Amino acid sequence: MARVGFIGLGNMGGHMARNLLKNGIKVIAYDTDAKRVDYVKSHGGQAAGSPAEIAAATKEFVTMLPTGAHVVSVLTGPKGVHETIQPGSLCIDSSTIDQSTSVMLADWATKKQSFFLDAPVSGGVVGAEKATLTFMVGGDAKAFERAKKYFDFMGKNAVHCGKPGNGLAAKICNNMLLITTMISMAETMNLGIKMGLDAKQLASIINTSTGRCWSSDTYNPVPGVMEDVPSAKGYAGGFNIQLVAKDLGLAQNASTDLGAPTPLGSLAHQFYRLLANHPEYKEKDFAAIYKYFKESV
Amino acid sequence: MARVGFIGLGNMGGHMARNLLKNGIKVIAYDTDAKRVDYVKSHGGQAAGSPAEIAAATKEFVTMLPTGAHVVSVLTGPKGVHETIQPGSLCIDSSTIDQSTSVMLADWATKKQSFFLDAPVSGGVVGAEKATLTFMVGGDAKAFERAKKYFDFMGKNAVHCGKPGNGLAAKICNNMLLITTMISMAETMNLGIKMGLDAKQLASIINTSTGRCWSSDTYNPVPGVMEDVPSAKGYAGGFNIQLVAKDLGLAQNASTDLGAPTPLGSLAHQFYRLLANHPEYKEKDFAAIYKYFKESV
Amino acid sequence: MARVGFIGLGNMGGHMARNLLKNGIKVIAYDTDAKRVDYVKSHGGQAAGSPAEIAAATKEFVTMLPTGAHVVSVLTGPKGVHETIQPGSLCIDSSTIDQSTSVMLADWATKKQSFFLDAPVSGGVVGAEKATLTFMVGGDAKAFERAKKYFDFMGKNAVHCGKPGNGLAAKICNNMLLITTMISMAETMNLGIKMGLDAKQLASIINTSTGRCWSSDTYNPVPGVMEDVPSAKGYAGGFNIQLVAKDLGLAQNASTDLGAPTPLGSLAHQFYRLLANHPEYKEKDFAAIYKYFKESV
Amino acid sequence: MARVGFIGLGNMGGHMARNLLKNGIKVIAYDTDAKRVDYVKSHGGQAAGSPAEIAAATKEFVTMLPTGAHVVSVLTGPKGVHETIQPGSLCIDSSTIDQSTSVMLADWATKKQSFFLDAPVSGGVVGAEKATLTFMVGGDAKAFERAKKYFDFMGKNAVHCGKPGNGLAAKICNNMLLITTMISMAETMNLGIKMGLDAKQLASIINTSTGRCWSSDTYNPVPGVMEDVPSAKGYAGGFNIQLVAKDLGLAQNASTDLGAPTPLGSLAHQFYRLLANHPEYKEKDFAAIYKYFKESV
Repeated sequence: MARVGFIGLGNMGGHMARNLLKNGIKVIAYDTDAKRVDYVKSHGGQAAGSPAEIAAATKEFVTMLPTGAHVVSVLTGPKGVHETIQPGSLCIDSSTIDQSTSVMLADWATKKQSFFLDAPVSGGVVGAEKATLTFMVGGDAKAFERAKKYFDFMGKNAVHCGKPGNGLAAKICNNMLLITTMISMAETMNLGIKMGLDAKQLASIINTSTGRCWSSDTYNPVPGVMEDVPSAKGYAGGFNIQLVAKDLGLAQNASTDLGAPTPLGSLAHQFYRLLANHPEYKEKDFAAIYKYFKESV
Repeated sequence: MARVGFIGLGNMGGHMARNLLKNGIKVIAYDTDAKRVDYVKSHGGQAAGSPAEIAAATKEFVTMLPTGAHVVSVLTGPKGVHETIQPGSLCIDSSTIDQSTSVMLADWATKKQSFFLDAPVSGGVVGAEKATLTFMVGGDAKAFERAKKYFDFMGKNAVHCGKPGNGLAAKICNNMLLITTMISMAETMNLGIKMGLDAKQLASIINTSTGRCWSSDTYNPVPGVMEDVPSAKGYAGGFNIQLVAKDLGLAQNASTDLGAPTPLGSLAHQFYRLLANHPEYKEKDFAAIYKYFKESV
Repeated sequence: MARVGFIGLGNMGGHMARNLLKNGIKVIAYDTDAKRVDYVKSHGGQAAGSPAEIAAATKEFVTMLPTGAHVVSVLTGPKGVHETIQPGSLCIDSSTIDQSTSVMLADWATKKQSFFLDAPVSGGVVGAEKATLTFMVGGDAKAFERAKKYFDFMGKNAVHCGKPGNGLAAKICNNMLLITTMISMAETMNLGIKMGLDAKQLASIINTSTGRCWSSDTYNPVPGVMEDVPSAKGYAGGFNIQLVAKDLGLAQNASTDLGAPTPLGSLAHQFYRLLANHPEYKEKDFAAIYKYFKESV
Repeated sequence: MARVGFIGLGNMGGHMARNLLKNGIKVIAYDTDAKRVDYVKSHGGQAAGSPAEIAAATKEFVTMLPTGAHVVSVLTGPKGVHETIQPGSLCIDSSTIDQSTSVMLADWATKKQSFFLDAPVSGGVVGAEKATLTFMVGGDAKAFERAKKYFDFMGKNAVHCGKPGNGLAAKICNNMLLITTMISMAETMNLGIKMGLDAKQLASIINTSTGRCWSSDTYNPVPGVMEDVPSAKGYAGGFNIQLVAKDLGLAQNASTDLGAPTPLGSLAHQFYRLLANHPEYKEKDFAAIYKYFKESV
């Protein structure tokens, strides 16, 4: 049976490694935090002392790290993958990082006669836990086929989006659209209610009109309109505002680098950065921006 | 057979009056432009010399005018409806105007022992022509029932949204959400394409993800992604940019008056006002903002 | 000796009426709050039971009220000035209100063979108390000359800006520019400090460069850069954030009505409305927006 | 007599190299465009075939290049400075580039036992031509002293702003403030004129009020208010809109990287990017944004 390396065992990675183990995959894992490695060991995994140790032990590994700098360091830094990488290796990077960094790392892997996939996920911590993630994947088509079985164990859907960087492009773009639409939805509902409409009625009108969107029909931000969404539970869970700010930052970097103006995406970024350090909002779901507008004048 | 007054026979009103006539309703019509009255006469209508003449001749009339000031003038100005209005009259105002003006006119009608419905439409000139408009209606429930048959002749759908002003609230809110979502969609598609994604592929990913919206799945702004939408026809037809700017202005007035901040709606307003006087864009469909972003750096 | 009416004795009006009394002017005053009238009586003023009573007693009066609706009511409502106004009367309106309302009231005064000046002030409560206000005045030149002595008693400067509405235009425009510049200054200082510059050094560079502005050289928003400004005193005093939001709202109304896009002014409006209901910021000076940015990410 | 290397002889660098020659400095110059090297030769300079050739020939050199990637390539790429650099060398980089790249290059220079100064300029092509530039300089104090004589030959002012990156920080911050203030000024003047004020009168009121700024008192964007500024000459010359967009992009990169929200700076960036590819505006001075607003609705 195959053995897979796993580097980065945080809120997401820990669950993902556990789901591989649960499906009979042997996992050799590394994290700078020993407790997290212990968690994987308690589910049958093996510990490694460094990324280099992982690359020496297996030709297939997943990385799930907070920033591009972390991925660069794990692959090319001291005791990094580059010290021991074997030709024909496959690195599946599920981190959400700058596209430009990711494309550079794909080039680096090619020079090592290996493969690198950018494979960011949507679905959050709950998706990681329940293995219902969606993977958006950029890179070599054969490498995607080779990685497919792991995607299936860790998620329910994997989409090959084309060349290196395309997985990140798909995720970053979808999320920017999602987040700006959520703000629009929140300000629209707040305005409509202040203009005299009932919240449910307004939602119903929008859902059958041209304003229809995921934030209106599936994730309404106004408490009382829908059940089983964060707005029904004090904005707990869901898409954390700090992650929202991070994803919008990646969109802004691309927007600035590539000459693609994004006025609403950029303004959304400013707002969520302000909320990402606001004591009342920083741990909340992003739909809480409705409350923020509602309490304004 | 009933006779209905019609005041305001422009791009929309001319078609609407004709559709009433087509359904056997007798129409007595007025417009400051005699040619427009002639058009209605050529379809079997009768001409009136002033709004007052209409209110003397019938207790039911429709107004379809460009601004709140026009409606105020037609109802309460010289030779206006107020000079001759009969108790029990019903005014159906399908103009898209400031909610505050409309509510004031509903109060005025009550004092005249009459009824006033705010009944703005969506569907545009094509909807007016083909009698496929949707009416969003605020005001007395019985007055709505009384007006229902006329809505059925001029459109395909009429929604009673509650008290006076609610029809305008519904339209203004839905449109603000629609328009901001379109801008978000346009900047997302432009960014994604510059990040290396194929337009159809990105649209497909969005349509099955959380970024899904009417502007992505029904009205994609990128040429070549969908057929039979304005983006496939050089942005001809559709939702004219000058009307977009007008509708966003009504949203801004409400936002400022009612203390409901609308940061994205407000920024959208600024952009469409700039485009509404841009020689290349002013006559185009609002999805043309994609082209505007694409040609930027 | 002349007798002057005073309607509206709030935070500003109370001081202004007192300063007239202090200079030997007889004042007859009205406010809906009897305590405020008592305050003026305690300084030698006379009480009136209504605006109508004032207009019967004198041909010169000042209004200092929170909104245009209040001014309309005081002049044209029940027991209002219109019931008793004498030909040749002069109304000096120092309220900061919508220009369109003010121009309408100037027309109304003309019909009453009287004069109306829009004469909003800058200088705040401290300026009202110490008689150091600046009056920006629109309306008839002779009426301005007639009002001049009162301006001199209540302030230190009065500028005739031309026709009716021009006083408000000058105040609303200057304040929009001031407020947007303050935000720019705050975000620039925060960015520069995070880029590694010392606050005083950056301020010094700006003050001798093209970024120079009143918010940099006279009212720096960063604590420790200047003395005797609100940023040196926990943002106490100064230009209250709620008034900032109000003034920007007036600018937005004009912007929407007149077809003058104001993207930065409009965005500033959104931000200050959010802060105007924020428990920590609502009572602070507007320079506190620096702190708001600083605490963000 | 000293010999100085010069790498990058474009619109700015050509004049700067010539001014060194004019002051008796021997210059050895390199550019990828041979014609530009010929220009310097025609003024008495010497040609080099590569950056490496320059670093072999002298321990002091200036770089004036369009982007950070160019500077990185010239210093560390093939035939770059790194191949021949002598201990104790001094690199004066007058390019306007990302602060993070510049700080990285300063570290690189330290490893080479050499010195690197970030020394971006203000003053534009005219300042380069007439030797009236201002240098904002970050880096070692002794290196600044060593570079001082060259600054004096190429400009009229050099400010030492502290550690590496601080010169860029000062320039980027001042320019972001300048540019946002210009937009505010343009929208304020346009609004005020539409509200009925005379342009000169409004400018005069602002210049003695709290809205006062460099864009109002020194560089008014409204034609007819001031003489000898770009607005008086069809917005020719001045601060080119494409450079404005570039500088705001650098500010945005820093804003995103460092967690410093810049809502107005970011919105300004979006607008100038749209104008930077607009046929009518792309070659104009940045004050032309007044015209853009004026022609809107």
